[in-house]
Formats: sequence, structure tokens, C-alpha cells
Amino acid sequence: MSQRILVINPNSLQAVTDGISSALDGFRFAGGPDIQCETLHSGPPGIETQTHVDGITEKLVEWFDQVPDRKRADAVVVACFSDPGVTALRESLPMPVFGIGEASYLAAVPRAERFGVIAILSRSIPRHRRTQRSLGLDHRLAGELAIDLGVAELASEEIVWKRMSGVGRRLREECGAGVLILGCAGMARYRGRLEDLLGIPVIDPTQAAVGMAMAVLLARRSAGATARAAA
Amino acid sequence: MSQRILVINPNSLQAVTDGISSALDGFRFAGGPDIQCETLHSGPPGIETQTHVDGITEKLVEWFDQVPDRKRADAVVVACFSDPGVTALRESLPMPVFGIGEASYLAAVPRAERFGVIAILSRSIPRHRRTQRSLGLDHRLAGELAIDLGVAELASEEIVWKRMSGVGRRLREECGAGVLILGCAGMARYRGRLEDLLGIPVIDPTQAAVGMAMAVLLARRSAGATARAAA
Amino acid sequence: MSQRILVINPNSLQAVTDGISSALDGFRFAGGPDIQCETLHSGPPGIETQTHVDGITEKLVEWFDQVPDRKRADAVVVACFSDPGVTALRESLPMPVFGIGEASYLAAVPRAERFGVIAILSRSIPRHRRTQRSLGLDHRLAGELAIDLGVAELASEEIVWKRMSGVGRRLREECGAGVLILGCAGMARYRGRLEDLLGIPVIDPTQAAVGMAMAVLLARRSAGATARAAA
Amino acid sequence: MSQRILVINPNSLQAVTDGISSALDGFRFAGGPDIQCETLHSGPPGIETQTHVDGITEKLVEWFDQVPDRKRADAVVVACFSDPGVTALRESLPMPVFGIGEASYLAAVPRAERFGVIAILSRSIPRHRRTQRSLGLDHRLAGELAIDLGVAELASEEIVWKRMSGVGRRLREECGAGVLILGCAGMARYRGRLEDLLGIPVIDPTQAAVGMAMAVLLARRSAGATARAAA
Amino acid sequence: MSQRILVINPNSLQAVTDGISSALDGFRFAGGPDIQCETLHSGPPGIETQTHVDGITEKLVEWFDQVPDRKRADAVVVACFSDPGVTALRESLPMPVFGIGEASYLAAVPRAERFGVIAILSRSIPRHRRTQRSLGLDHRLAGELAIDLGVAELASEEIVWKRMSGVGRRLREECGAGVLILGCAGMARYRGRLEDLLGIPVIDPTQAAVGMAMAVLLARRSAGATARAAA
Amino acid sequence: MSQRILVINPNSLQAVTDGISSALDGFRFAGGPDIQCETLHSGPPGIETQTHVDGITEKLVEWFDQVPDRKRADAVVVACFSDPGVTALRESLPMPVFGIGEASYLAAVPRAERFGVIAILSRSIPRHRRTQRSLGLDHRLAGELAIDLGVAELASEEIVWKRMSGVGRRLREECGAGVLILGCAGMARYRGRLEDLLGIPVIDPTQAAVGMAMAVLLARRSAGATARAAA
Repeated sequence: MSQRILVINPNSLQAVTDGISSALDGFRFAGGPDIQCETLHSGPPGIETQTHVDGITEKLVEWFDQVPDRKRADAVVVACFSDPGVTALRESLPMPVFGIGEASYLAAVPRAERFGVIAILSRSIPRHRRTQRSLGLDHRLAGELAIDLGVAELASEEIVWKRMSGVGRRLREECGAGVLILGCAGMARYRGRLEDLLGIPVIDPTQAAVGMAMAVLLARRSAGATARAAA
Repeated sequence: MSQRILVINPNSLQAVTDGISSALDGFRFAGGPDIQCETLHSGPPGIETQTHVDGITEKLVEWFDQVPDRKRADAVVVACFSDPGVTALRESLPMPVFGIGEASYLAAVPRAERFGVIAILSRSIPRHRRTQRSLGLDHRLAGELAIDLGVAELASEEIVWKRMSGVGRRLREECGAGVLILGCAGMARYRGRLEDLLGIPVIDPTQAAVGMAMAVLLARRSAGATARAAA
Repeated sequence: MSQRILVINPNSLQAVTDGISSALDGFRFAGGPDIQCETLHSGPPGIETQTHVDGITEKLVEWFDQVPDRKRADAVVVACFSDPGVTALRESLPMPVFGIGEASYLAAVPRAERFGVIAILSRSIPRHRRTQRSLGLDHRLAGELAIDLGVAELASEEIVWKRMSGVGRRLREECGAGVLILGCAGMARYRGRLEDLLGIPVIDPTQAAVGMAMAVLLARRSAGATARAAA
Repeated sequence: MSQRILVINPNSLQAVTDGISSALDGFRFAGGPDIQCETLHSGPPGIETQTHVDGITEKLVEWFDQVPDRKRADAVVVACFSDPGVTALRESLPMPVFGIGEASYLAAVPRAERFGVIAILSRSIPRHRRTQRSLGLDHRLAGELAIDLGVAELASEEIVWKRMSGVGRRLREECGAGVLILGCAGMARYRGRLEDLLGIPVIDPTQAAVGMAMAVLLARRSAGATARAAA
Repeated sequence: MSQRILVINPNSLQAVTDGISSALDGFRFAGGPDIQCETLHSGPPGIETQTHVDGITEKLVEWFDQVPDRKRADAVVVACFSDPGVTALRESLPMPVFGIGEASYLAAVPRAERFGVIAILSRSIPRHRRTQRSLGLDHRLAGELAIDLGVAELASEEIVWKRMSGVGRRLREECGAGVLILGCAGMARYRGRLEDLLGIPVIDPTQAAVGMAMAVLLARRSAGATARAAA
Repeated sequence: MSQRILVINPNSLQAVTDGISSALDGFRFAGGPDIQCETLHSGPPGIETQTHVDGITEKLVEWFDQVPDRKRADAVVVACFSDPGVTALRESLPMPVFGIGEASYLAAVPRAERFGVIAILSRSIPRHRRTQRSLGLDHRLAGELAIDLGVAELASEEIVWKRMSGVGRRLREECGAGVLILGCAGMARYRGRLEDLLGIPVIDPTQAAVGMAMAVLLARRSAGATARAAA
């Protein structure tokens, strides 16, 4: 029977979920784990404050309680860079749970000595810093800078790209970042382009987390086979 | 054109490479990245000292120089828990390079608050501790214990299992480990069995590193598609 | 006009709030800040999981929105050792906000080189460890032990005392703790008794946080006077 | 019988003691702990070097030996930002002892992610850094800057204010401090004014330490009552 | 003109100074730096409390002021494991100043992954821990144990040896220490014997500090020669 | 019988070895340890990459195997700032082994609160940072800057001096370094001159390591004498 990775976008915007799902196309294979992207319709349209972050936990737990099949997923990815509900879901669900913020910091370690983070909003930076410190990886932070665009401007790919490429350049040149992390689930479309422009790796957090989830599931396939052989 | 992950077993034993390759079966898909496992025939039969670890670097660099096609791999995994040559290859090769020791510490973070490590030999523990400390993840180490078996005994699956399950139990119960790491590339066959016995996740380091490599390659497929769309 | 410290018990049990209020009697003076203890009736009866912790945030924010006068308090104390909603309230309220877990770790520093924590439940210990690590004070932790009693047993003062005094003794003697922290808002009644028995300071977390809140308010009185003089 | 907090100004200037005492007015209540401010007449007129700092210890110990009543205080606060004699007094006196440097770093933690320090002299900064590092709170330091004024200039409130407000602004804007600490016992008069100007909390160290001392004493009143009830 | 290292025993016992001087015999060469061991006669007979430690600073500073020739030494070593006055002397004297506690922790790093410390008294251990933490080397501490002997027993070489060898064995076997530090200036005579017994390096702190001082002086001889050649 | 310190220059340039030996003149005494400087002729002409660093290990081990007398040295110093082979030699040789990078970081600690490093090449800085972090001394790094000169320019003492003195000045003034480390075995000739110019200590790494080696050997002379007396 097929394995399944459940990716939950905890904000209520279906368009964001669609973007995330499209950014995961490369992770889909015939016979591979099913990667199912869902929207938490009860979530807020944007996750900008710690109140939003904390408030998502119960909604996520309820969401899993509503449809029993959701609890049968083999791995769960919470697709918001602030990792809302991740610790709580780890306590309450039986399968591995990944937060895309945590996953991207971990994924950055093998890629360069120090990482830079591109945030959407400056006021999120202290929140990100708490996660970096709690992981014990703050000593590898080169710097974090925000593009600080409003909703209207975020709709313009040209404006976003201009700001993002400028911020990325500063992180590489002034801060000494050897790898960049996109500090938001909705920036995947710029990943490859930014990597090409700057010549250093750029990490999309959802891709990083789904990669970690796949590693666990695929290991089980191998392990399963081996376990049977050993029996 | 197909993507390729090159997994190099830096000890000279083809049987170990075969075991590694078999443990990666679950990572192979039609249309997925090719996972090619190779033996560094110039390597030592076992990697037990820091001299062995350091000595492998030049042999690995030469190995890549010998056959130009090897340098065209999309990602490289060095399949020894002491991560020989990993930093050097990162400096000299153009593609991402993963060490299985580093990768397994990183993979352990989302699975539990604190990890335990099962080493083959007690004298490797200080070497592992240097890596843990250098990553900044030593604060999450619950403990590390060795099975300390000689070559003859390592050949007996029954003896290894008995020792490994005992050591794993102590790490879980006495040290408080919430996830275990197999501290050697050659123990993958026990992963699933140990996980089933102890009820906590068990990480095979090569699977962890190949998982991280796949995440990078699969992200590129998505990114590639998106980049084209954006162009 | 009088200053006011608003202490919120985020679980729904009025009896717990009453106990907290009684433990704060010593902090009440004629002419001093008013210390008002309230119950979050929408909260859970007990706060035992990360889901409970996160879920309280929105309820707290709403609670402040419901009655405008609450937002006019001069300082807020959230009286649960897991510090639910504290970071979020700091972002959304204008006055200083104190969490009793954080406050008690800080209050322990001047009292001894290393602190011990008495938890109610073993499963809370990883949650507490995250806070200790995030504060950068984990290097001063001597140890944390739980009394692990069920609801029925917690009702018996004799049983609680026996277990608590035993755990306290072990923290002092085996772990080397020089000060103890009661890891729950509901254990204040045992503070003095335990301090007398063991001969080392014992910290009640709510008292620690209210003490920090008072320090801020009383400083303002002084400062106000001085500012006027300087004008 | 009344509780008493003994605040010792370890430099010999009575005017400084008077300023400290005046800054503590807000902490005085009918029926509250007596806050007694004393001058260490044997101390140096200023505490500017590590020799001064260390040299105060014996003088403080002797000062307590000279008048038995001093040892009957319920809490002691040493009112110099370099915390002279604090560790020694903790070893030799029975009551809690607070250093105003340590207390202000601890008091800053709940107020913002990162703190800034305003020093009098640049050459004190390495000494302060040692305390910050030893506490494990250096990761929360945004920056420390000195006003670097000579004795004559320090007498002019206008000059001090101009320099202090400039330095405070730089700490907030360039260093990212979310809370400021006045790095000297003699700057309390500027606390409220600076807080009003900059819109972020400003901590006077003596007020922070007296606040921590009061918290311990007031807890005892509550605890005392409870203990009696329990007996 | 000859270089000179001034070693000051800050306790008043000439016998201790003589023992220190004798332990430095190996560091004396014809034409080498003069190693002059002096007693701080104004010091206490033993340095057991933080009050003793702090109280020595002014006496040391005065001692240098009394005889101008002392300030012409090329390097100063303060021969007490608690490093009394070291920071203050660094501020007030022109030549390099070494503390034997700090020096021995530094000297231990190249000798093994983790060090053990043999203290005279248990109550000194928190004081030592502060130094280890402040240096950032606490992560390499395997453990610290005291021999806890009274003055009378310390006079018996047999009793001391029995206790010291027992404690050393426990540090090696139970704590995993790969190198031992003698946590007192007066234990040099046991260094070689303990090293022979346990088969791991044993560091005498005064020898470690004098070694660091010599390195600075001898470098200057070389540098002097080279500088002249370059001129 | 005479003690001997074996200093190995792991690059193949005899001129570098000669410079090192000359910089150690000050460490040579009649009756003192013999300081023997040798060239690893099988080494690369320069050590600029991690591949070079790792590749030296086996060559060093072989070098010791080739001539039995080499293994009878009393201490070994590997004279390259990247400490090639140091950990491996510690495992395989019976005598103490010192790396000049590690030794110079340790030697810098007693000289100032924070150290600066002058590197030859910018690309070595991440390698140095790994060592600093692994030692736990990264919190004392003020900054590291490179002179970044090519081979031809390195031959001109005037050009090197100009660049080095500029970089040193920036480390002192902009980064706040209180002591400088020359990040290469071949810069000893500038040590004294730079120290004179900047007025802060400058450490030559080989001198630092030979100093630590001498301390161990000279301690043994003292200890030997004492041990005999005690027998």
C-alpha cells in the first residue's frame, strides 16, 4: 500500500497551497510516496504574529481529529516557516512531524559554513531567532534580512524579485552567507532563479521538510525489505 | 537527462558497499535519481583511526579525478560515519557533498529532543563527540555507547543483534534518548528491527544522507520547471 | 491612581486561582499595586500538553479583548509554568508581560550556582528543558525530577508532601541543586515548608513573576517622582 | 517584626547613596520591608578598575562584622554595577545577596529579545562582558556603548542627558536593542526620561535588584502564613 | 640583560612557596629567564573562600607598588588555583600576567578530549566551575572531585597520596577524564607519581602557567633577534 | 639524556623550515630541550585546501614510521596553522603532540579578552573558524582578516608588512582585538615589529606551540626529581 506525506498549509489561502504543491512536483514519482497538500481552511489568511502561530495548534489538532484518514498519513509537514503546532503534533500524532523552518536550518548545515535568511517581514526576525537559538544553530547564522513588502507589492513578481535579489546579494556579500534560506513557504518560485543569480545554494523550506519526510519513508521501505529477509 | 547520486563507501570492502546499496533500495524509483554505490578500492578495509579518516581524503579526490564522469554526479554521499574527506570534497567538487555522520545528527533533530548513538567501537566515541560539538548539537546528545565487538563477532548477526539491542535499550532507558542513530554505515539491516523492538525511531546514517541529497535534487526538478515558467 | 498587576490563571479551575491569590498575600500593601487574580474560564482544567499550551494563546488574547479594562493593567503575569501565550501577549499588549516559568529560572540565578526543578509530571520535563535551553540557562540546571502523581493523589496534601520532599532531597543531594524551583503554579503552599526542611531556597514561580512585575511598577513610581523633579 | 533590605553603596560618596535611596522611594510602603541605604565609607570614591572591584570585598565583609545588626538584614543588595563582593557575601552571609549588575541582566530578559547596556566608561565594557558571558546571557546582548564623560562633565545633567540619549538611540537603532540597562548605580534619575524618549523599557540596576530582593521577602510573608496554616 | 618571571604565592606560607619553587627547578637554565618565587606575606595562610580570593587583589597591587623592581619583571604568575587578582593585575601592570587555574585548563586542551580536576576541598568546586564556564571550556570537563582532607591530614603524604590516587582513578574511569589537573598550587610533588600510576597526563598548574610565561619571553628573544635583522 | 622537541614543517619548503627554526632560537638553551626542525619533504609546497590538510596525515604517520628515532622525541609540534594530522598523531604516537593553530588560540586567552587573527588567504578563514568553534573559544574572536597576497607579493617583505600592519590595525581598532595571532607558520619575522607598532601582544603560532611543549618537558624534569625524592 502506498505511503503518504501530508503537507498542511496552515494559512487559509488555497492559492498558497497550490503554489506549495507545485513546488513539490519534483518530489512526485510513480510508485513513490503520495504527497498530498491540504489547506487549513480554519487558519488565518496570513501568519504574522505569535498569536497566529500559537492559535494554529488547536486548529491543526482538530483538523486531524475531523477525518480519521488524516491520522493514517505516514508523515506530516507543517508548511509555515514559524513551525506552528509542530511540537504539539509531535506529542499527539503517531507519525513523524516536520516543521519547514526547523527543516531548512538543518538542511542548510551541509551546504555552507554559515546561512542567511530572507524574511518577508522584519518583525518575524526575532521569532526566527528564537528557533535558531533553540536548535543550537545560531552560531551558523550569517544574517537575516527582510524584504518588507506589503500585500499589494507581494503580488508583483517583479517587485518581489528585485527586493529579494537585492537582499540575497547583501546576505552573501556583506554578511558572508554561503547558503540562503527562503524564510516563507510562498517563495519557492524564486528559489532556482536566485540560486542561479547568486551562485550559492538557496533552500526552499517546504522542499527541505518534504525531503526529510521522504527520507524517513523511503528508509522504511528498505528497512522493511531487510527486516523480512532477516526474519 | 537523469540525475545521479554517487554514494562512495570509502572502505575497500565490496560486501559493505553491497549492504549499503541494498539499504538504499527504498530510495530507487523509475524516473527518480540514479543511486550509484561505489567502493573506494584504494581505501582501508576498516576506518578505525583518525589516520584512516584523514588518509581517505586524497584517495577520494584522486578517485574523482580518475574518471571524469564521476564529477558529473549531481550529489555525492560519503558513506562512513566519521565523514572522511567531506569538507575537502566540498571545497573541490561543484556538487553538494553529504557526510553520513553529519546527516544523521541533523536528521535526528526533528525526531526527538535528545538522540543516542550506537558506536561499533568505544575508541570512536571521542571522534564522534568532536563532530557533535562542532555542529553545535552536543546539547541534544543523550549518550553514546559502543557494542565493542571484534571482527569475528561482527560476522554473527545474532551476537551483534543481542549487543545492539541491549545498548539501544540502555540509551533509551538510562540516558533518555528519544531517537537512536546507528553510528556506522554497515548496520542498516538492524534499523527496522531495532525500531520495532524499542518503539523509538532509529536512523541509518546512509539513508539519512541520501535522503538529504535527494531533497536537493528533487527540489531542482521543481525549481527547474518553475524557473522555466517564470522565464 | 493605583497601579495594577493582573495575574491570570490560564486553567479553568477557580480553586487554583484562589490558591495563587492566597500565595500572593504577602505582596499586597496599603497603597501598593493592586494584585488581581483572574481565572481564564475558557481554559482547560489542566495544562499538560503542548496543545494545551499553544491553545491558550488565542483564549488569552480574546480575554483581553473582551473587557477593555483588562488592557489597562500595568503588568500581566501568566500563571502557568509552561508560559502559555507569553510571547504572543508581549507582541500584542502594551504593558510588560511575565511568564512564571521564565521568571523562576531568572529568580534562581542569584540564589545558587545550580537549580533543580520539581515537576508534576515527567512528560513536562522536555517542555521545560526547551525553555531552559532557549534562555541560555541550561548550563545551570542541576536536574529536574517529577512527583508524578495522579489527580486523586494530588488532592492529598500528605501524599504530595511526602513525594515532593523526597524529590527535593534527591535534587539537593544527588544532583547538587543549591536552589529549587516548584515547576507548577499550584504548589505554593509547600514552598516555605520545603525550604525549612531542606535548608536551601525554594522558589514559587508565581511569586517570582509577581516580584518582577512589582519591580517594574515600583521603579516607575520612583522614576515618575524623579522625572517631575528633573522637569 | 519588620523585614529589612540593606542596600550598600560600596563607593564612599554619600551623595551617590542619597541618589540611590531616592530612586528607591517607589519601593517603600507602610508595612512593607524597610529599605535602608548605607554608604561603605571605607570604599573608594569611584569603582573603575578590577582592583577597586576586588578590593571592596574585604571591606564589605568587615562592614558586616562591625555592627551585628547588619547581619540581621533579610536581604542585601550591593549597589555597584560591577557586583563587587557579591559572590563572597553569598558564601559568608546567611541571607540572600543581590548584585545590581546581575539583577539587571536578569530583569532585562522578559522585557525584550536583546538588551543594550549604557556604560559610563569604555574600559568597563570588558568587565561587563565577563559577567554577561558567565551568566550565559551574552547571546542576548545587542550591544554596549559608553558615554565616556569625565568627572566634571558628569556633574552637568544637560551634558549627561545629551550623551546618554544619543547612546541610547544608537543602541536601539543600530544595535537592535529592545530594552536598555543603565550600567551604573548613579543614573537612576534618567531612567524614566530615557524610557519616554525612546519608547523601549529602561532598567535601573538598583531598582532591578531591590525588586528581586523584595520578591523573596514578600514570598516569605505569604509562605509564612501558609506554613502556619499547614502546621 | 636577563629576563625574569616573578611567581607569587599569594598565601603567607613560605613552605608552600618553597614547594612551588622546587617544582619549577626544571624550568631553570643557565642563561634562561630567572624564575623568582616570592611569598605574599600579607596574604592569608590558606585561600579557601571567595573573600580570601578577592581580598588578595589589593595586597598584590600594593606588593608591586612597594618595590619598584617587582614591576620590572617580564612576566608575572599568580600561584593560586583560584586566580586571585589576575584580572586586576592585567589592568594595572604592563607585563603579561598568568593565573595558574586558567593556565592549567588551557594546557589541558591539547592533551585529551576531556579533563578532570582534583580539588582539595569540595566547596571550591563551584568557584572552579565559574572559571571553566567563563573560559568557555566547561564542555570539556569530565568531572571534578575533591580529596577533602583537613590540615592535619594534608601533612601526611601517605594519606594525601591514597586519597589523591583514588580520586584520580575515579576521574579516569568513571568520568572519562583523559588528562588530570591538580587543583591547587601545593600538589606538584604528586604530579609525576600520579601520571605514572594512571597512565594519563597530569598537569601541575604552576608549571603550566610558568610554561606559558616562558613561551612569551623566549618568543621575544627570537623576535628581538629577527626584528634587528629586519631593521 | 637530553629531551627533544621535534618540530615538523609539513610543507616541503626547506626555506620555511629554516625560518621556523630561526624563530625558535630564543627557545634554545645549553642543557635545554633540543629543538629539532624538520621538513616533510613529501608534503605539498603550500597548504591551502582541506585536501592538503587531510592529505598530510598519512605522510606524517609514515614519516614517523620511517626513522624509529623520530618516535623517541619527547614532544611533537606540527608547524602548520591548520593543524594537519594533529588528532591522528595524538592517537598513534606516545608523546604529546601540539598543533600550532590550537596552541595559539589557547595562548591568546590570558593575553586579552578577545583575539584577532591575520590570515594569509581569505579562503582559509572558514577552516580556522571550525577550529575556533570546536575549541569553544569562538566567543572570544574579535575578527579575522586576510592579507590575501599572491606568491610573488609574499616574497616582498615590504608589501607583506604594509598589508599586515594595515590588517592588524583594523583588527585592533574596528574589531576590538586585544591580542593578535599570526595565522601562518611563516610570519614569525613580523611578530615583534607588529607588536611594537600596535602596542598589543602578537602571537607567533609555532612559538606558542613550542612553548606549550617545553612546559610539559620541563615539568617532567621537576617532577622526575620530586618523584625520586618521594620514592
